[in-house]
Amino acid sequence: MSAVASKAASLDLADPLSSKRDLFELPAGIIYLDGNSLGPPPKAAFAELEQAARREWGEGLIRSWNEAGWWSLTDTLGDRVGRLIGAQAGETVVTDTTSINVFKALHAALALRPERRVILAERDSFPTDLYIAEGVAASRPGTELRLAADGADLGTMVDERTAVMLINHVSYRTGALRDMADLTRRAHQAGALVVWDLCHSAGVVPIELDTIGVDFAIGCTYKYLNGGPGAPAFIYANRRHHDGLVQPLSGWWAHAAPFAMESGYRPAAGIRRLLCGTQPILSLRALKAALDALEGVDIADIRAKSLALTRFFMELVDPLCREFGARIITPRGDGRGSQVAIAHEQAYPVIQALIARGIIGDFRAPDIMRFGFAPLYLSFREVADAVDALRDVLASGAWRDSKFSAKALVT
Amino acid sequence: MSAVASKAASLDLADPLSSKRDLFELPAGIIYLDGNSLGPPPKAAFAELEQAARREWGEGLIRSWNEAGWWSLTDTLGDRVGRLIGAQAGETVVTDTTSINVFKALHAALALRPERRVILAERDSFPTDLYIAEGVAASRPGTELRLAADGADLGTMVDERTAVMLINHVSYRTGALRDMADLTRRAHQAGALVVWDLCHSAGVVPIELDTIGVDFAIGCTYKYLNGGPGAPAFIYANRRHHDGLVQPLSGWWAHAAPFAMESGYRPAAGIRRLLCGTQPILSLRALKAALDALEGVDIADIRAKSLALTRFFMELVDPLCREFGARIITPRGDGRGSQVAIAHEQAYPVIQALIARGIIGDFRAPDIMRFGFAPLYLSFREVADAVDALRDVLASGAWRDSKFSAKALVT
Repeated sequence: MSAVASKAASLDLADPLSSKRDLFELPAGIIYLDGNSLGPPPKAAFAELEQAARREWGEGLIRSWNEAGWWSLTDTLGDRVGRLIGAQAGETVVTDTTSINVFKALHAALALRPERRVILAERDSFPTDLYIAEGVAASRPGTELRLAADGADLGTMVDERTAVMLINHVSYRTGALRDMADLTRRAHQAGALVVWDLCHSAGVVPIELDTIGVDFAIGCTYKYLNGGPGAPAFIYANRRHHDGLVQPLSGWWAHAAPFAMESGYRPAAGIRRLLCGTQPILSLRALKAALDALEGVDIADIRAKSLALTRFFMELVDPLCREFGARIITPRGDGRGSQVAIAHEQAYPVIQALIARGIIGDFRAPDIMRFGFAPLYLSFREVADAVDALRDVLASGAWRDSKFSAKALVT
Repeated sequence: MSAVASKAASLDLADPLSSKRDLFELPAGIIYLDGNSLGPPPKAAFAELEQAARREWGEGLIRSWNEAGWWSLTDTLGDRVGRLIGAQAGETVVTDTTSINVFKALHAALALRPERRVILAERDSFPTDLYIAEGVAASRPGTELRLAADGADLGTMVDERTAVMLINHVSYRTGALRDMADLTRRAHQAGALVVWDLCHSAGVVPIELDTIGVDFAIGCTYKYLNGGPGAPAFIYANRRHHDGLVQPLSGWWAHAAPFAMESGYRPAAGIRRLLCGTQPILSLRALKAALDALEGVDIADIRAKSLALTRFFMELVDPLCREFGARIITPRGDGRGSQVAIAHEQAYPVIQALIARGIIGDFRAPDIMRFGFAPLYLSFREVADAVDALRDVLASGAWRDSKFSAKALVT
């Protein structure tokens, strides 16, 4: 056994989460390093879907809205996501999409700071956050979207005109982790509110929204939460803002009495004011099974293993970088989420060649290979094997095969 | 055999759609008259969900976004819904919720009529349409929501200040069917645009959006389209408006190059401009199976059977109305969708007593019993049996049992 293999073996032996892998369905022959984009199914999701479709939809029919708890899934699942991000019950709902929840959060924040006009965000934000912020700004005369240059410290740009700062907790591109407590404090000192995008941190980084006093947060549930393709997103609003919550997507699920069928909108109390319309129950039920798989897991164990997996990966990749002109752009130390990003001129065909060998990472334009490390189902052995494959692809030039350069629609 | 039973039997014998019932999973002992609220599962939905979850999510993982066509489901399913509502390919997408699609359609319409400020809608509209219209008006300074009194002719209220008229094709309450061609023509004559809400007509009433020249339409897919609880909704925009489509929910799915990860929003061409964020794939796949069940069915056959079922029901209910103080508020003639609404002082406990006997209709505040008649899976025999049960509940006073008056959350 090589020194690397033996180190991996001893790390796996000491892993307190190693038994969790059995909860997930992962195909044989695949090393899955893309759980930062789409988590794999928890095995229990299949039975949960069957229950929801055959028993509840098929036998219960319309009655299941009450009897199977469909109507309150936004809240019951929201509270469970809330526990993973440091929110009290009643501060989080699962609903709609990340993009739509960014829209609601920005509108709600702007309404709470009516005398201010600036939305501050990062240029290298996950793009949809910016596209939505543009949409908000364009539809609110006088509102201005100001973007910080890549790598700039948003905290230095907050001023008395800033209504709200929209920040990615972990950069989708580099994997850099922002200091939530510090940035929130500096925003609040300037009188601004914060909206944190937790897409790349929920479920894999300890988060304390209430303790820090965050105003709003949004995020998706299909990455480290493993809720399934396009599973509904979540939105959090700190309890202190609930009485003043206003957002223009005031649909019937956000009404105080949805079945009174009143012609005028009367806002629901609390976090339900951030709901809008009828939610996709089948997709929500896969998410329920995924949250079950996280039940009882200590997020500190997840974080410790996440840092260990990414550290191990970076140590093994460092020599390859020197040899093949690649560059790890993910921070060392602890300032990262659970992914490692490597810039390389041929990132696209290299990723394709890896995928052909069963090592699934992904590509982000223009030149980044991303590898996500989900502590619930990955072993150190797999990390070592993935780096072996990467070395082989780079050393052999296997990526030069033209079949690896044809761009797929989604990469 | 009674005269009624023998009439039902002969109608069933002549029914060209009778074989379609086998495509649906319906529990034994139930007569399901609530398909206008939640359609039952097509049997194929279970296998479709299994395929999507186990094979595509579980084995394909992230690759299924390309390889299983997930990324384009909004469009492929949209085009299939489009064929049911008289739209060309490329004019309809399945996405988000009805409420959110009302929001997009109203914004898009207002943007096309910048010099006009009035949204005109019906007070007895399905409430979420009004709540959303309120949200749109409140977030656009100067925009005014004007509501027509119950039963008023919206066409007489359109004037040179009206930007857009929002109309329910079939009233969720009374089942009245509006004249789409006439109202659209009168709106256009006044220079206004129209948004048609097809929630209670798509899949059961012939609709010719393109021929009539409708501007926008939205609707849900879980009623007569049987897409499953909370299945994503649809939105249609007439091709002539595509170049000018603007709406503030400009998420990454509406970007011209979503994977170029640009920091600025560049709108996609065509109908994709009405998309926003990542869609719930599992729920979309149940809808796919549901649209399969409609494939090859002539909408004219559906309409003919729908009118026959509701006519038969009303004929049988008329004597009960006289005897028990009930009143059919659904139009006779052909001016109705596929439901019959009966006003009765004790509508709530009567519906509950019927449900206890396996006859599932629903209640709408304050005093309406609604019965939906979905031609794909209902027989005339079931209609006759349902009326027998209603007669028995009313005549015996069975509804007086206190267990039938306790209100459930969703009714």
